[in-house]
Amino acid sequence: MEALATELDALQDLFYADKRYKLLVILQGTDTSGKDGTLRGVFSRMSPLGVHTVGWKAPTENERAHDYLWRIHQQMPGAGEIMIFNRSHYEDVLVPPVNGWITPAQTAQRLQHINDFERMLSETGTVVLKFMLHISFEEQGQRLQERIDDPTKHWKFSLGDLDARKQWKQYQAAYENLLNATSTPWAPWTVVPADSKTHRNLMIATVVRSTLQQLDLRYPPSDPALKGLKVR
Amino acid sequence: MEALATELDALQDLFYADKRYKLLVILQGTDTSGKDGTLRGVFSRMSPLGVHTVGWKAPTENERAHDYLWRIHQQMPGAGEIMIFNRSHYEDVLVPPVNGWITPAQTAQRLQHINDFERMLSETGTVVLKFMLHISFEEQGQRLQERIDDPTKHWKFSLGDLDARKQWKQYQAAYENLLNATSTPWAPWTVVPADSKTHRNLMIATVVRSTLQQLDLRYPPSDPALKGLKVR
Repeated sequence: MEALATELDALQDLFYADKRYKLLVILQGTDTSGKDGTLRGVFSRMSPLGVHTVGWKAPTENERAHDYLWRIHQQMPGAGEIMIFNRSHYEDVLVPPVNGWITPAQTAQRLQHINDFERMLSETGTVVLKFMLHISFEEQGQRLQERIDDPTKHWKFSLGDLDARKQWKQYQAAYENLLNATSTPWAPWTVVPADSKTHRNLMIATVVRSTLQQLDLRYPPSDPALKGLKVR
Repeated sequence: MEALATELDALQDLFYADKRYKLLVILQGTDTSGKDGTLRGVFSRMSPLGVHTVGWKAPTENERAHDYLWRIHQQMPGAGEIMIFNRSHYEDVLVPPVNGWITPAQTAQRLQHINDFERMLSETGTVVLKFMLHISFEEQGQRLQERIDDPTKHWKFSLGDLDARKQWKQYQAAYENLLNATSTPWAPWTVVPADSKTHRNLMIATVVRSTLQQLDLRYPPSDPALKGLKVR
């Protein structure tokens, strides 16, 4: 992982200099599936200048006054930038259908919007990588118990997490539905077995590395005037 | 037009109170086709609280670092709001193809993005109305000459307007192409004969009025506690 993180740091520098692409990385997964840990473990070595993160929460009143992709589109990376989403617009096809706030037809409509949106992003130079961090029901039970037992982890826990755990099957079904609908050539999902934190980080770092390597990145051509120039 | 403007003002008040919809009005047309005049003539009576306008210019460096719909999406109206665009994302399928900066295949791709984007807006509660202000070549010549001859109109004129006039036929072809591709049930175009300013305003006001009337707008239900309440 050390070696990989160093490689990723070098690739990010090149990506930032090259400026032909943008990279969006989406991390999705149930509570305690390791989204924060992935951010720290895989991306924290890169330069904060070209790497940004958004942790998505429930929408504000102003955000709810607009379509659900409005706030998402605003946070898209610019040329040369890497944006990492901790949760994303995929929450809008998880929480509302599981709680019956929208109909299956509305969910299907949203899945189509998301595919269209991501295809537009892809066709305008954004590379989209989506990771679903998959942990077992047992592993989640253990991790939630740790958060309850350790006072320094209480801030990460809310009683609502136990309600979501009671809906485990419904959430797994909603995930299956969205994975089937939105695994596209232009924005593929990688399902990451995430009970082991080490393997989770290695798998995500490897996919990001090979994606960046395939872009044939290059530093922009130098000014010929620099050749042999001596600073006096 | 006086009577129409009063009706529109009342409908806008209702639209703002109802809050179930958003309205996007797009004004497109060549230089001097009357986009500013339409803003003043049709929409200036409405309350500035719920009506906003954006006049789109060439994109900034930061805007160019993102997809071309990024800045557009940010300016979408919220619930109960009316947004009027003076020019729009349609400039991105006019100026670049006419000047050969993008290929016909890329133009076709963009037209598809725009249809997808507008369908998503429509399916999430935004009513989209698009007006193409159509003036004749002769009328444009006369209006440009007026701007040149009148020093108080010089600020509205740039020499680049004459270059665009030389590309009249190419622009008309680009308009024809986009009208064919993006006249959709969810975001229809109205082509407005605009040599006469009065007829132009009447036509646009009439379409906006009938669109708002068809929404079956209503004031939200009153608090029953208000019934018969006397202020002492």
